[in-house]
Amino acid sequence: MRTGRPRDPLVTQRALAATWDLLSTKGYSALRIDDIATSCGIAKTTLYRRWPSLAHIVVDAVVSRIGDRTFTPTDDPVADLRAVSSMLVQSVNAGKDSWVSIALSLHEQSDSELRLRYRERIIDPVRELLAEVLERTALAGCLATTIPTDQLADMLIGGTVYRLVFLHSPLTEDEVTTIIGGLLTAR
Amino acid sequence: MRTGRPRDPLVTQRALAATWDLLSTKGYSALRIDDIATSCGIAKTTLYRRWPSLAHIVVDAVVSRIGDRTFTPTDDPVADLRAVSSMLVQSVNAGKDSWVSIALSLHEQSDSELRLRYRERIIDPVRELLAEVLERTALAGCLATTIPTDQLADMLIGGTVYRLVFLHSPLTEDEVTTIIGGLLTAR
Repeated sequence: MRTGRPRDPLVTQRALAATWDLLSTKGYSALRIDDIATSCGIAKTTLYRRWPSLAHIVVDAVVSRIGDRTFTPTDDPVADLRAVSSMLVQSVNAGKDSWVSIALSLHEQSDSELRLRYRERIIDPVRELLAEVLERTALAGCLATTIPTDQLADMLIGGTVYRLVFLHSPLTEDEVTTIIGGLLTAR
Repeated sequence: MRTGRPRDPLVTQRALAATWDLLSTKGYSALRIDDIATSCGIAKTTLYRRWPSLAHIVVDAVVSRIGDRTFTPTDDPVADLRAVSSMLVQSVNAGKDSWVSIALSLHEQSDSELRLRYRERIIDPVRELLAEVLERTALAGCLATTIPTDQLADMLIGGTVYRLVFLHSPLTEDEVTTIIGGLLTAR
């Protein structure tokens, strides 16, 4: 039995918007796939054809809020490092009062499928992007520190999140410029 | 009217333990000072003689869980930096499944008195301690980066929290040694 409108290109969008709203109002631990089906008027069978589990829908809903975080490298690693850092900070700061708080609540869940999915889709892409551009900067001899680049990426991401979530004082564009400048060798 | 046992040296300890338990089970937003009074059997008037507000009791309860974070500086800034960083990481990591999760939920509250008190008692002391020892290290010519020391402190603290809370992979003692080593000039 096929119900809903499986070929409607807006089905995904409607389901993700409904999921986001439910996450914001009732949180993850109280969320059931039936709530999403009822809220967006899409049959549960249709949802399960698109997403194998609730964790998959939830993480896709968060991704759809964060927006595009892709980056095309150039042959100037320092310029790329500045661009990627700036994109990262803007993306984190834009999450104030929205996805950061949901991300934190997801991290408190013991649902290992959710954590894995969240990690693969949300955390790892940006960590890998930043670590990669730091590594290219180091190979070009432009990095003043010998901290391993994956550790340095975590310090930059962690520092940005910490300023937003714990200090309620988001990193500014000028501060990002200063921090990246302080990581580079004098030229 | 004096009720409770105001001269009992264990009153503070009992009240903080009860507050902690209530925070863990029902969260901050549902917590009332009456609940604490009932739970520990201490009159509300007694509690108000010791703490001017609920926010004050709650933050003290978190402080009592984190434990001592004082440090006596030596005349070797690099040794001090290693010692303070190690203490910081141990203190954050020890909060897994206990105070970190409560700290996060406190940070989502819009209670400005709570935030201010939390910031003064829990966040600022360790930030200032770390920034101060980084500054001494920089003045001794031992820091390889020109990132302002307060920013660098936030990156170290933020990176530690991020590894614990978001990556569920706490920084190890070896990694702290590597990171601090990478911040220092070759000697």
